[in-house]
Amino acid sequence: MSQQQSATSAGRTETEGLAAAPGAGMTGDIAEQPEVFARLADSRADEIAQVAAEIARRRPKFVMYTARGTSDHAALYAAYLTEIRLGIPAGLASPSAITVYGARPDLSEALVVGVSQSGGSPDISEVLRVAAESGAATLAVTNNPGSPLAAQAQRHIDVSAGHERAVAATKTYTAELLALFMLIEGIRTGDGRLGEEESALVAELPELARTVLDDDTAVQLAPRYRFAERLVTTGRGYAYPTARETALKLMETSYLSALAFSGADLLHGPLAMADPDVPVLAIVGDGPGGGAMRDVIGRLGERRADVVAVASQDVPGAPLRIPSPRVDERLAPMLDILPLQRLALALALTRGENPDAPRGLRKVTETM
Amino acid sequence: MSQQQSATSAGRTETEGLAAAPGAGMTGDIAEQPEVFARLADSRADEIAQVAAEIARRRPKFVMYTARGTSDHAALYAAYLTEIRLGIPAGLASPSAITVYGARPDLSEALVVGVSQSGGSPDISEVLRVAAESGAATLAVTNNPGSPLAAQAQRHIDVSAGHERAVAATKTYTAELLALFMLIEGIRTGDGRLGEEESALVAELPELARTVLDDDTAVQLAPRYRFAERLVTTGRGYAYPTARETALKLMETSYLSALAFSGADLLHGPLAMADPDVPVLAIVGDGPGGGAMRDVIGRLGERRADVVAVASQDVPGAPLRIPSPRVDERLAPMLDILPLQRLALALALTRGENPDAPRGLRKVTETM
Repeated sequence: MSQQQSATSAGRTETEGLAAAPGAGMTGDIAEQPEVFARLADSRADEIAQVAAEIARRRPKFVMYTARGTSDHAALYAAYLTEIRLGIPAGLASPSAITVYGARPDLSEALVVGVSQSGGSPDISEVLRVAAESGAATLAVTNNPGSPLAAQAQRHIDVSAGHERAVAATKTYTAELLALFMLIEGIRTGDGRLGEEESALVAELPELARTVLDDDTAVQLAPRYRFAERLVTTGRGYAYPTARETALKLMETSYLSALAFSGADLLHGPLAMADPDVPVLAIVGDGPGGGAMRDVIGRLGERRADVVAVASQDVPGAPLRIPSPRVDERLAPMLDILPLQRLALALALTRGENPDAPRGLRKVTETM
Repeated sequence: MSQQQSATSAGRTETEGLAAAPGAGMTGDIAEQPEVFARLADSRADEIAQVAAEIARRRPKFVMYTARGTSDHAALYAAYLTEIRLGIPAGLASPSAITVYGARPDLSEALVVGVSQSGGSPDISEVLRVAAESGAATLAVTNNPGSPLAAQAQRHIDVSAGHERAVAATKTYTAELLALFMLIEGIRTGDGRLGEEESALVAELPELARTVLDDDTAVQLAPRYRFAERLVTTGRGYAYPTARETALKLMETSYLSALAFSGADLLHGPLAMADPDVPVLAIVGDGPGGGAMRDVIGRLGERRADVVAVASQDVPGAPLRIPSPRVDERLAPMLDILPLQRLALALALTRGENPDAPRGLRKVTETM
């Protein structure tokens, strides 16, 4: 990997316009997110409402999500939302049971949802094909209506995030989250349209995202991690996908060994690893998930771990904080990830890496 | 953490008899596994067959597993087995949807299985209580018939591993795997009894385990990782739980940042992190899951990662190998983890840590 001498300071991470500058693609992708939220909520509301109404009529007995990488974290968010808001059991499928071992589970009463920004991973398409064969309703959520996955599924939602320049997914991730929120809350009302409260949440999202992106705390913290080799991220409930996605961004762009744990799982073993030399990023929301994190952060504090909280107010045990707005926990995943994407970008540049083209990765990953 | 000067060489890891010596508990627990397999297969076959027959009659539409830590890896194994062998969709539940957010999913046609060595984690018990209330069949798989979880569930399987001395679970994990194998293969036949092929697999397991434990390759490799701060484990399908459990053992006992990925997920991002300084432990079986790992190991080889394979034969791209017997992939998780448990134990001792009592951990972790 060549050294990118021209962009090694965190202060340059937001430089735009230089198409060839390392990180320019990711910088642009991240900055577009308020606009992507607004466009999706506006231009795709009817399409999503129609899909939601059809699914509501069909009343699936359970929902199986299938995805890889970043999209797997959007699927995890959707699984929480499905169980909590719809009272329908939901889970993430291991594609390999079907694609590698030839499992043919009876999915006749299921909704099977494939999530993939590219729509190009053959294993996800194969899971949807097998599911439809056994009688399942199938849905693809992608950023590419011309993709094999969109063609394979009975229904498709286009998250309309536009072309993503960097290999590391940012705006396609948050667009997936919003599309899944609109879908599931639309299924809840039955007619596919959002309720009053959810409409208000979606309407305020672009402006909230702008406010979050205007704050530079996360970028200023990046140099602290210049020489870190490992890092732990943690959150519970709706914030757990944010912890997972943060870890993946740091691995992809800065080659850190970043481990994500639900707050509860952290106490079942990995806590032993925490010491003053292991940095921890904790996502602490303002609802029940955030409340359940307080004991976890206390235990990390006992071990004198270096905890930075992403939170709307100071958290005992976390000396540093990346500010996040006080919002409904269902909306928080679309906002809390924004400063963490910027942290990953800034850290990669500080380390002389180009986050637009991580070593060894391709934009479309084809696995079976 | 005090230094354990008396046991810092890998050569002493198998020292038994000194009850107070660091690692003596874990050493004993590991060594007992062949005997635990034999006892479980012998003394619990009737009980498991009866539970399996009852579940087969009830014909659940899907199976939801719920567990934490090590037991979550046994549950993951069971989810693969359920989909592949029974054709019943299966997934792992996030307890927090129910325990933190108050979700009340309709589980009336589900089987909900709580797996926990101690049976003492309140969140798992709460998930089973809520599941039963909504009409689910519930089953607990524990090492403690007197536990709250065993009392909560409609049915209970006692994995009968005996008292586990070390905090890090070893024999209770493999006992859970075997109990779940016997359960699911018993459901498959319908009358709860194992088929001929599966009976033969279970019968040969104790002797195979003895052979595996007699090989010291893994212990001899431990000093290579003396100064490693991070490590990647990977496997696909039935071997993925082994990768996850290995990572957890290394975190718990040696405080390594160990990351586990399914072979496919590794290619979706984390591969960027792999370089000659990141050690990789790859579990490569002799069936379809192992076959699907060959491309992954090739890609790791391109990145010049330091790959050690757990495999029955040499794997291109992995210069070193921990030998494992050539067996059905369904049985491999009960065998491949054995040298990896010994590796974790030996590494902890090499580092002057006491794996019987990792810092910051308790044997029974109570989370909600």
